[in-house]
Amino acid sequence: MNDKLKGQLAFLIEADKMKLILRQTLLIDKSRRENDAEHSWHLALMAMTLAEYTPLAISLDRVIRMALVHDLVEIYAGDTFAYDTAGYQSKDKREKEAADKLFSLLPPEQGREYRALWEEFDAMQTPDALYASAIDRLQPFINNALTDGHTWVLHGVTVDKVYKRMDPVRDALPALWEYVENVINENLKAGRIKPAPSETVER
Amino acid sequence: MNDKLKGQLAFLIEADKMKLILRQTLLIDKSRRENDAEHSWHLALMAMTLAEYTPLAISLDRVIRMALVHDLVEIYAGDTFAYDTAGYQSKDKREKEAADKLFSLLPPEQGREYRALWEEFDAMQTPDALYASAIDRLQPFINNALTDGHTWVLHGVTVDKVYKRMDPVRDALPALWEYVENVINENLKAGRIKPAPSETVER
Repeated sequence: MNDKLKGQLAFLIEADKMKLILRQTLLIDKSRRENDAEHSWHLALMAMTLAEYTPLAISLDRVIRMALVHDLVEIYAGDTFAYDTAGYQSKDKREKEAADKLFSLLPPEQGREYRALWEEFDAMQTPDALYASAIDRLQPFINNALTDGHTWVLHGVTVDKVYKRMDPVRDALPALWEYVENVINENLKAGRIKPAPSETVER
Repeated sequence: MNDKLKGQLAFLIEADKMKLILRQTLLIDKSRRENDAEHSWHLALMAMTLAEYTPLAISLDRVIRMALVHDLVEIYAGDTFAYDTAGYQSKDKREKEAADKLFSLLPPEQGREYRALWEEFDAMQTPDALYASAIDRLQPFINNALTDGHTWVLHGVTVDKVYKRMDPVRDALPALWEYVENVINENLKAGRIKPAPSETVER
């Protein structure tokens, strides 16, 4: 076996660690937390199943590949919870270092291809990335809705932050927006999502 | 939300159960058994990463979609272990009933598309299905190789059966065949794979 193929196998073996990176989201049966490999698979299937609803000019096949690789850097950088402000400050640096380490196992052209898909996803500028991001936010949102708002309750998340987080769904999957709003309103009423902090009142 | 979209969401919610279907294969760190969602993700990534090595005229994007849906019927039919002869006798019937139940949640055209991908995979006749099957056998083989032959030892699997199981790799991924043979030979020598049963000797 030549060094190129050896490197690709090493990469695929390293990828097994995605199954150990736990996210905040629970499985719908509430038995345990979801991991990155499961999340990536669910995302790809969701992107495939809901593609007819996006008005964006996407290439579904690119979106599916993007879903498959979008969290790989977390093998080394760990999962940063969506509402973790402090974690987000160091996220870029941690993930860039992780990408250098992980993608260098692959032959240069393939390493660049996977890295570019991840960077495009993260930048949220192209139609493919905007659709993939909307799905990336919808999947844990659905699991949260079906597990009594688990991560919202656990972290005391406020409604303004949930709206901000879910905003990409509005343009990328408008047919789902009413569902998103209904879930947010129900969970706000039930006290599982906190009200927005009141603005500072001048005295 | 219209009934069509409701059905698609119901399907995607049902798909969460793939994370609960345990396979015989261990994760490479040996901490626990792998599940179907993780396996499907790993397969899709592996198909993407090794595509350059297949001499078959595949459409990689179709193979990736096939990998994502190929085990969905196990949500209801359960995982049938590769070397479980009795289980294989009832596998077809169980999986067909599962497919009827699961894919009927989707709008008819989409349900037919997913079902056709699964049936094509299972029939192992087209280039896409032959490549996907080779990857489907290679992924647990690699995990087995790196976990002291866990499932071979656990089930007392004989070398003739391992060769038969791995045979699709020979044509679909010839560059990997030497690696497969080496792993089989090492594990046979180490006693983790049993010798082939001797033929009945006439007295």
